[in-house]
Amino acid sequence: MISENDPELAERVADIEPFRVVEMLTRAGELQAAGVDVIHMEAGEPDFPTAPAIVAAAKRALDEGRTRYTPAAGIPELREALSAWYRSQHGLDIPASRIMVTPGGSGALLLLSALLVNPGKGILMADPGYPCNRHFLRLVEGQAQLVPVGPVERYQLTAEKLAEHWRDNTVGALVASPSNPTGTALDNTQMRELFEACNQRGGSLIADEIYQDLVFEGDVRSILAHTDRALVMNSFSKYFGMTGWRLGWLVAPQHLVQELEKLAQNLFISSSAPSQYAALAAFEPATQALLAARKKEFGTRRTYLLQALRSLGFKVDAQPVGAFYIYANIRGISQLDAREFCLRLLEEQGVAITPGADFGDHLASEHVRFAFTTSLPRIEQAVHRLGLFLG
Amino acid sequence: MISENDPELAERVADIEPFRVVEMLTRAGELQAAGVDVIHMEAGEPDFPTAPAIVAAAKRALDEGRTRYTPAAGIPELREALSAWYRSQHGLDIPASRIMVTPGGSGALLLLSALLVNPGKGILMADPGYPCNRHFLRLVEGQAQLVPVGPVERYQLTAEKLAEHWRDNTVGALVASPSNPTGTALDNTQMRELFEACNQRGGSLIADEIYQDLVFEGDVRSILAHTDRALVMNSFSKYFGMTGWRLGWLVAPQHLVQELEKLAQNLFISSSAPSQYAALAAFEPATQALLAARKKEFGTRRTYLLQALRSLGFKVDAQPVGAFYIYANIRGISQLDAREFCLRLLEEQGVAITPGADFGDHLASEHVRFAFTTSLPRIEQAVHRLGLFLG
Repeated sequence: MISENDPELAERVADIEPFRVVEMLTRAGELQAAGVDVIHMEAGEPDFPTAPAIVAAAKRALDEGRTRYTPAAGIPELREALSAWYRSQHGLDIPASRIMVTPGGSGALLLLSALLVNPGKGILMADPGYPCNRHFLRLVEGQAQLVPVGPVERYQLTAEKLAEHWRDNTVGALVASPSNPTGTALDNTQMRELFEACNQRGGSLIADEIYQDLVFEGDVRSILAHTDRALVMNSFSKYFGMTGWRLGWLVAPQHLVQELEKLAQNLFISSSAPSQYAALAAFEPATQALLAARKKEFGTRRTYLLQALRSLGFKVDAQPVGAFYIYANIRGISQLDAREFCLRLLEEQGVAITPGADFGDHLASEHVRFAFTTSLPRIEQAVHRLGLFLG
Repeated sequence: MISENDPELAERVADIEPFRVVEMLTRAGELQAAGVDVIHMEAGEPDFPTAPAIVAAAKRALDEGRTRYTPAAGIPELREALSAWYRSQHGLDIPASRIMVTPGGSGALLLLSALLVNPGKGILMADPGYPCNRHFLRLVEGQAQLVPVGPVERYQLTAEKLAEHWRDNTVGALVASPSNPTGTALDNTQMRELFEACNQRGGSLIADEIYQDLVFEGDVRSILAHTDRALVMNSFSKYFGMTGWRLGWLVAPQHLVQELEKLAQNLFISSSAPSQYAALAAFEPATQALLAARKKEFGTRRTYLLQALRSLGFKVDAQPVGAFYIYANIRGISQLDAREFCLRLLEEQGVAITPGADFGDHLASEHVRFAFTTSLPRIEQAVHRLGLFLG
């Protein structure tokens, strides 16, 4: 109960939005409790369990008492393992000293926002995009400067768009490649051009590479292949299948690491120790083979679902090449607002997807996101139900 | 290497300070690598391993695949367990719906700072105090309004001090009881008066109760015994011995929980899933018995160390009643700056402690903090070495 004497809240609270998908999750839960078979395609979380070797490593670490604070930048072994992995997997020479372990990609975004953005300063980012990005900027009193993007740019911020939208108070840009919710990526030329355009203006480029290792086609390289001056965030959640472990990392230019470490000490002390020791097993050959097989499975699902949705009349006008999402325009098949579309689809057919409003403002009411984070048979079933729903 | 073209960093970066103790930790590590026997009394981390039942619960949770995102406010079972524990341990009726699980006490501080503090607004807090508090406010462009406190107030913010220091832009106060670094606590009357004084001015009171269950003497109750309108942060790190698991919680007035949950969704998605399931075992009778025994051991160490330090000439002018720290004035025995005192003590006698500068500005150069987070025999040895050091 709010009484008149209650202190006022900070203004940012009104600007930070809840996840719309929670409404779907809640209703889906109620339906399931009532016996309805719900197909979940709303969550940005792989359906695969964490790889057995990672779980086994966690249990070993627990037996060995690895439950204490670690250095704020992460245990040296994990920073070294990530460095070795950049070398073996991506052919990149990134010293461990430039890599910091963080509590999820969220922790990396918190540090980078704190590092780079003064109050009133802005960071350009694509709309649609991952919604938390803009809220981290709001947290530090900066501005997310949303750039409406569509099929022409394959839903990505490009050098041209950057030039068009750069303002006096802009201090950088954030790009996600591949992107959530669209699965589109920048090619190497575009990535280089974007970095140059940002750099020429004295800005910082933040690259969200959380889906970097879930690319199914094309030559999509890390921005680290092009420059050592970008700020890269990544996560063990998606490709490595470690969502609930809350572990991510960032790569920064060497001269910024000490400042980031200072921020990390103060803002979260350290990342989870058991999670860090567990993650060491993510780089073992057996785990990498398993993760590669899972990636292949995601690719198969994507190919099927993309074709099926198009057949049903959904418009997917930029090919998703990575991540595990398809961002589809419903206007050709429904005049409903996307939220209403999602709610009715859930009520009538037990298929849970996410309304576009979770990813921004630009044409959000005519888009929905499908996450192919359930098995192919279930996806086929969902497609069948979608056919019934659309009549 | 910093080049002229590098983007400028946010101004807050220069204001956020590294932990001074890291300098000690680094040097202690070097000395140990060279074969020196270092006695560690610098870290705010219990020397006891995480309780076996908690570790066992974590391993069970891993076997059961509890490695996925959880609700942002925490798993319902843990919120219920905390509610039951407030009832059984503290005689307080705190519904689970008012309790949110967070990634450490740090996560709780992040949420509360984001919730309450507009740019330019201030929160009163004691100096000396836990240093991260002021940096969380700096993060959101608020101000930590440091109130110099000493033995007269037993190093605590009091209603009188609050009245004296409240400014036009003050929107609340933060109190830590018992406090890090001093171990002093507010008694019940003082706590009520402080809340009233804050409330009368339309401010919010944040109570850091991280050491609430490590009180050795006196009737120090949670602020929740006095009001349901304070904002309480707590942690599984200290009393529950789960530092590296990164798990904490907060208690808020019911009407604020939804806003806090929205912030949590955006700022960290969820707390570590394995850590949350592990923490359920913290409330089992066997674990509680173990934790009570450990608390008793901390009490024994405190009594010994307090007497020993006073005998050596350290001035500890406000009785520490909780936590695992003694904040001692060195001026009677040394004219060195506290940092220099700590460095020399480490070099010459292999005893690592923390300089006062880690906790604020007020008389920091003449204070050091001893953490009694090592065994009694080791503490006795440290006292012997201190005697040699002081000659």
